[in-house]
Amino acid sequence: MRAVVLLSGGLDSATVLALARAAGYDCHCLSVDYGQRHRAELSAAARVAAALGAREHRIFRLDLTTFGGSALTDNTIGVPVAGVQAGIPVTYVPARNTILLSLALAWAEVLAAPHIFFGANAVDYSGYPDCRPEYMRAFETMANLATKAAAEGVRLTLHTPIIGLAKADIIRRGMELGVDYGMTVSCYQADDAGRACGRCDSCRLRKAGFTAAGLADPTRYQTG
Amino acid sequence: MRAVVLLSGGLDSATVLALARAAGYDCHCLSVDYGQRHRAELSAAARVAAALGAREHRIFRLDLTTFGGSALTDNTIGVPVAGVQAGIPVTYVPARNTILLSLALAWAEVLAAPHIFFGANAVDYSGYPDCRPEYMRAFETMANLATKAAAEGVRLTLHTPIIGLAKADIIRRGMELGVDYGMTVSCYQADDAGRACGRCDSCRLRKAGFTAAGLADPTRYQTG
Repeated sequence: MRAVVLLSGGLDSATVLALARAAGYDCHCLSVDYGQRHRAELSAAARVAAALGAREHRIFRLDLTTFGGSALTDNTIGVPVAGVQAGIPVTYVPARNTILLSLALAWAEVLAAPHIFFGANAVDYSGYPDCRPEYMRAFETMANLATKAAAEGVRLTLHTPIIGLAKADIIRRGMELGVDYGMTVSCYQADDAGRACGRCDSCRLRKAGFTAAGLADPTRYQTG
Repeated sequence: MRAVVLLSGGLDSATVLALARAAGYDCHCLSVDYGQRHRAELSAAARVAAALGAREHRIFRLDLTTFGGSALTDNTIGVPVAGVQAGIPVTYVPARNTILLSLALAWAEVLAAPHIFFGANAVDYSGYPDCRPEYMRAFETMANLATKAAAEGVRLTLHTPIIGLAKADIIRRGMELGVDYGMTVSCYQADDAGRACGRCDSCRLRKAGFTAAGLADPTRYQTG
């Protein structure tokens, strides 16, 4: 079975790729260079795709800094480092997941792949609206009206296998499947070598996940 | 009221911009250079935006030729010129409208614009699945779960004011509002000067619309 797997280069999507491979899917991985600060995640994605036996890995480029509106796509907005707060943080990128999923939908249709895998998580996450299960269901419904494939009766399934898991459980599951999390980059402001800041929300959620799982954290941190 | 208007440079979206302006919207126009054959439509879009009093016009670039799968994004697939056939033609671009609307959604959120206008048409059209009213409703439902704005109670409305109109009625309505259709480019394989082939489905539907409306066709055609 052919599937498109959205692969950011972070911990969550690497786990999702491992799960899709374990379930027997032939995985076509898509990473999107949208002008994010943390482009080190893109080279991480390439390494993860190769290590986990993806059929292919493509990087699609589009420039969301044109619109801005997020700490990840506008360099004048700082990435918060004081700790995870309530509410939707400034690292939210307007409509980002909708854009990523739309691109995955396009490629899935061209490949005749009726499956998309996406590493959204709604438990230990940053409060992003486009990570919620009800959003995923609405996207899937829309997708099944959008395409020629759907009009011809091929139903698309959007898989979000880790959406309900705590970070520690995601890590445990990935380790069982042999994911080397040292390859992955989650930090919102990783340096060019992929070393993490240790202070942004994404770093904090990841670090807490390894602690809760009782496992050694393989993340390479910047000095300090 | 602020609105994002998707403006292709063709007849339908020019009419939609005129309708939005007539209804008093402050229009931020978005054109997408996705690698389509008929890029002459993009300069047409800039002229139309200026002529109809848009607040601004932006061209967003992303390269759907990466995926291909359509006569409009893969030069090895020819544009049909034998006349409109039943079924979904090879000019269908996989998930194109979903991608366009996702980009509009992102910009609308950054602009704090709760309205998107889109020139889809489900009457004199080419059978594209992502031009149907049920698709539009599903996109709107998904959009209202996708964004921070929606999570904070700002409802997004997707306006498709010509979706149920025949081409002749679209043209009549636009003429009443002063649209100069000579500025617009609908042809799938217009030349660099914006002159139409007269034989592709888009040209045929447009030409039939002027005939049915009993109005002179201002389209500039290639020689022959």
